[in-house]
Amino acid sequence: MTPSLPSSASAASAVTVACCQLAPQVGRVSENREQIREAVLSAADRGANIVVLPELANSGYVFDDAEELRATAEPIGGETIREWEALASRLRLVIVSGFAELGADGHVYNTGVLIDETGLRAVYRKAHLWNAEKTRGFTPGAAPPPVVDTPYGRIGMLVCYDLEFPEWVRMAALEGAQLLCGPVNWPLYPRPEGERPGEIIRVQANAAVNRMFVAVADRAGVERGQEWLGGSVIVDADGYPVTALRLGEAATVSATVDLAEAHDKSISELNDVHADRRPELYSGVGPEQP
Amino acid sequence: MTPSLPSSASAASAVTVACCQLAPQVGRVSENREQIREAVLSAADRGANIVVLPELANSGYVFDDAEELRATAEPIGGETIREWEALASRLRLVIVSGFAELGADGHVYNTGVLIDETGLRAVYRKAHLWNAEKTRGFTPGAAPPPVVDTPYGRIGMLVCYDLEFPEWVRMAALEGAQLLCGPVNWPLYPRPEGERPGEIIRVQANAAVNRMFVAVADRAGVERGQEWLGGSVIVDADGYPVTALRLGEAATVSATVDLAEAHDKSISELNDVHADRRPELYSGVGPEQP
Repeated sequence: MTPSLPSSASAASAVTVACCQLAPQVGRVSENREQIREAVLSAADRGANIVVLPELANSGYVFDDAEELRATAEPIGGETIREWEALASRLRLVIVSGFAELGADGHVYNTGVLIDETGLRAVYRKAHLWNAEKTRGFTPGAAPPPVVDTPYGRIGMLVCYDLEFPEWVRMAALEGAQLLCGPVNWPLYPRPEGERPGEIIRVQANAAVNRMFVAVADRAGVERGQEWLGGSVIVDADGYPVTALRLGEAATVSATVDLAEAHDKSISELNDVHADRRPELYSGVGPEQP
Repeated sequence: MTPSLPSSASAASAVTVACCQLAPQVGRVSENREQIREAVLSAADRGANIVVLPELANSGYVFDDAEELRATAEPIGGETIREWEALASRLRLVIVSGFAELGADGHVYNTGVLIDETGLRAVYRKAHLWNAEKTRGFTPGAAPPPVVDTPYGRIGMLVCYDLEFPEWVRMAALEGAQLLCGPVNWPLYPRPEGERPGEIIRVQANAAVNRMFVAVADRAGVERGQEWLGGSVIVDADGYPVTALRLGEAATVSATVDLAEAHDKSISELNDVHADRRPELYSGVGPEQP
């Protein structure tokens, strides 16, 4: 037997999460920033507490080469982060966004930032790089996904291809993330007719096996010939989407959810998705044993 | 960016996999055995090379207590396994089935067996027990999922709730399983209208993140008031089902697939779902570090 996860009732702690499916473009930093500002203001206007933005929202994605990327990347203390901090403070938001970061060490990172009304709370550098990111100037991160207590709950963060590694997602879940936020840029690939995109399927699985909410902000539009999926979605702790898909469109998807449900990992009288793990048997999955 | 996994062409090595969605009943061992025999003969007749049967196919599932289970469980050398060995040999099949095993150590296990034309190849004892299995007489296993070279490819095996632990599935995949077979008994739970059952979603994710085929044989019918999902499915290495669902019905689902596709773990020019893992960073997921 195996579960299908009815969620238990829990104390109300409703928060509204909005995922803004924007269309940033390489080389248009100020337009990208303006697009983000408008989306955040609009989401806040409609009651959002937590706003998730796409991967590399400040820079766009389809760089020709490492030089173009480096010219676009910004330091953490730069104008973009300062503006997001001001927005988060004024609107009492949590903002999670992808960001092309020029590190103090001179390297360029595909970074996620988590900002709340008190300021910058976490900087995370994508650990699993996708395709040309490996050859066009990004350095992979080596720190685990951050998990941060915010006014709206305990929130984890990772970036795009990181989501394809259930071990990485598990680490955030075991740190107590009630909501995992994922800025992504999902390229459009063919799929069988009638099938939901596999990227979303895998987000659903990540949510269910950890009884954790997941909010993904994808991007829309076409950039230098690259079509994007536009698969932004919010998935509940049972692993089912609570937002309708707006594939390919510039749109914001949002939902009001009770993140307290993620505290309850039980899925039957005697089963708990975390307590039932047998990590002592999972040899070869993590760091090598001595 | 993240993948959506177009599969590459590869040398043809087509095999036909059949998952028999039977309705075993507690206490009717000889009827259960007859039902299995007929299903295996019928699947072979229609060209199956690999036949997957449900969890606890010989015994049924809904035991009142540990005594009833113990009275039904059989040793590995008993009549059921001997019959399955004879069928596999005569019909040149691989048979993977769940089996209530009375161990030589006196314990009762929720076991999976893998049999090919040469005989019994692997015995696996479910490591993650579901609900009343914990209190009604089953002892959990502690050995990793077996992965076995057969005439039809390299095949891994685990049982039902084991599938909900991506670390466990990963271990079979890293051992080179091209096809993971999962005997299951999935109870019927409510789900949002229009949604595919979460158990199947999670099987799809397991397949895609490992570029490995997965074949699940669920059970049908109602047993002592317990309704079953009947969610048998075969999923390809891209993570999409290649069989239509026959939810709740007694039925066999089958597909002819090219397991060689599972050798190719690449999902973009520079990405490989296994080589891109960073196990040195996955601390806390597996056995504790010293």
